[in-house]
Amino acid sequence: MTRHHIALIPGDGIGAEVLPPAQQVLDAVGARHGIDFTYATYDWSCERYLREGAMMPADGLGQLRDKDAILLGAVGYPGVPDHVSLWGLLIPIRRGFRQYVNLRPIRVFEGVDSPLRAAAPGGVDGGVEFVVVRENVEGEYSEIGGRLNRGTPEELAVQEAVFTRAGVTRVLDFAFGLAARRGGTLTSATKSNGIVHTLPFWDELVAERAAVHPGVAWDQEHIDALAAKFVLDPARFDVVVASNLFGDILSDLAAAVAGSIGIAPAANLNPERDFPSMFEPVHGSAPDIAGQGIANPLGAIWSAAMMLDHLGHPEAAKDVTDAIAAVLAKTDVRTPDLGGGATTSEFTGKLLDLL
Amino acid sequence: MTRHHIALIPGDGIGAEVLPPAQQVLDAVGARHGIDFTYATYDWSCERYLREGAMMPADGLGQLRDKDAILLGAVGYPGVPDHVSLWGLLIPIRRGFRQYVNLRPIRVFEGVDSPLRAAAPGGVDGGVEFVVVRENVEGEYSEIGGRLNRGTPEELAVQEAVFTRAGVTRVLDFAFGLAARRGGTLTSATKSNGIVHTLPFWDELVAERAAVHPGVAWDQEHIDALAAKFVLDPARFDVVVASNLFGDILSDLAAAVAGSIGIAPAANLNPERDFPSMFEPVHGSAPDIAGQGIANPLGAIWSAAMMLDHLGHPEAAKDVTDAIAAVLAKTDVRTPDLGGGATTSEFTGKLLDLL
Ligand SMILES: CC(C)[C@H](C(=O)O)[C@@H](O)C(=O)O
Ligand SMILES: CC(C)[C@H](C(=O)O)[C@@H](O)C(=O)O
Repeated sequence: MTRHHIALIPGDGIGAEVLPPAQQVLDAVGARHGIDFTYATYDWSCERYLREGAMMPADGLGQLRDKDAILLGAVGYPGVPDHVSLWGLLIPIRRGFRQYVNLRPIRVFEGVDSPLRAAAPGGVDGGVEFVVVRENVEGEYSEIGGRLNRGTPEELAVQEAVFTRAGVTRVLDFAFGLAARRGGTLTSATKSNGIVHTLPFWDELVAERAAVHPGVAWDQEHIDALAAKFVLDPARFDVVVASNLFGDILSDLAAAVAGSIGIAPAANLNPERDFPSMFEPVHGSAPDIAGQGIANPLGAIWSAAMMLDHLGHPEAAKDVTDAIAAVLAKTDVRTPDLGGGATTSEFTGKLLDLL
Repeated sequence: MTRHHIALIPGDGIGAEVLPPAQQVLDAVGARHGIDFTYATYDWSCERYLREGAMMPADGLGQLRDKDAILLGAVGYPGVPDHVSLWGLLIPIRRGFRQYVNLRPIRVFEGVDSPLRAAAPGGVDGGVEFVVVRENVEGEYSEIGGRLNRGTPEELAVQEAVFTRAGVTRVLDFAFGLAARRGGTLTSATKSNGIVHTLPFWDELVAERAAVHPGVAWDQEHIDALAAKFVLDPARFDVVVASNLFGDILSDLAAAVAGSIGIAPAANLNPERDFPSMFEPVHGSAPDIAGQGIANPLGAIWSAAMMLDHLGHPEAAKDVTDAIAAVLAKTDVRTPDLGGGATTSEFTGKLLDLL
């Protein structure tokens, strides 16, 4: 029996509605594969912020430090500025635990309509199935910058993007390694024609790491053209590596192309395993539907599958993604965001039947 | 008889193949509306760069200064780094002539298949028809930044984005004004949750200018969610205003959603008319198809229509966009990028018949 101690951070809104389904799936698949999960739940959220003035306690990272992984629902609440919930919880965890890879798989499932006419159901054989590898701890999301001449007609704001050789190299090596394991190609997102300091540096490092991974075919595209190709020819991509901002944009766009933001998962990985990694659905806290019990649990469940994989249980992970594929392909039970009329728990129940 | 003296910069690749069709259309519509066009052609291009070491002569802007407008084909050539062609020609003209608005209309035409299942042919009544207003002279495209510890393991690159109150305010006022004239809504692209200095400033200025234009309904979306909505619900947009980088990404994405990058036009506007404005198709120089005579001329022709509008001839401009709509809706003559087998000149000829 393998044991894993998991930190659960439900967060706000539908975050609290999608984690219990993920836990049920983990327990069910754990029972079959001899994995025993225990959980510690943290109420860190915008509600806590409104109550106590901070998203998490001062020693929050210390409390998470000894867990095997973190499963997060969603943060964000009307009345709490987004930058508070982000910089008070999500970004400190990503940075403090050196989760420098944000991995976002994209797959068009049979039974889910992509908004694209041409997108075929996913799978290795020709359909849309690719991964965005996003740099997760530096780049354009930087605290460096400020304002000059505040309140005057001459006011201006500056913001510094910082790309380090060490930070870019490690995420590129992860992406090249992943492309090698998948037997696929790597596409680098750039904009070195317009952004003339950081992105030419990124391009140089891509060429440098490509030389170290000679077995991987790679190319690069400017972010504007790449966004267009995500719509025009998504099946052509395999592993896409991008800076923090570009990866954020591309992964949301890709989730839309795949037919639902409600299904897309994300893994914030510390590949060295010096610290716990964090798994979270791409969707947000969705205050508009919170409390109705109709949130799509698949984003959280797929995130849990990525966690299983990271913890060394690829077969258990595959059981979960197979069950996701099955419930979508073989039943018409689904939540309203996917055009169905099921509740979160009906949808989860059907998936558990198929697991 | 109104006279206009136009600078033509064919540039590279298919740039030289799409400007003559635009000129033919201008001459035809000019004859009908009593407008007399004269042209001065400049060979500024990557080929010139390879020959003479500069994209344009040192007094290039001086030579363009007295023209009524500039029509540009495309720049970019294999072997010449993109940042050379951009910073040696396009950006100096945009910045030197204070073309601080980059206006990019999007329309799904009848007869052109959008890659989206749901996108209906354009028009005021419910279809996809909107405009991206891109800030064009500051923001993320900045020369400020550099490298530290070059060649060492500690190497890093920084890049500074600069947003000024004056620069943001004028493009917002243009966008609010346009939304008011269209009787539509304004959507602002932001990412103030992740980018914590420049984009919160942008958001504040949007709220400030909204107060000055109380008749215009507006909202804002983070760039990741906005890119997703361009795919999921493009018909919901009317005027979208964005920073230099975000506008670049969104306008290419929107052109893809509309079914062809080959049709999309751009106007680099100096709204005060202190300097000539510049009109250019969104597509690039396309070295892969250059020289075959099969480039889609509609991007250049629609750009010429935007120029007519800017020069004070809205009826002439409408004749041209009506002819574009007609050739697409009523004939199956079209270039290979639109699924047809026609040459550039056959496609242009058919459009001229319908003009
Ligand atoms: C050539 C390139 C750098 C340019 C830009 O990003 O401004 C182009 O993409 C455009 O949109 O005009
Ligand atoms: C909440 C937000 C700032 C965050 C990000 O951009 O990193 C989110 O969009 C994500 O992708 O995880």
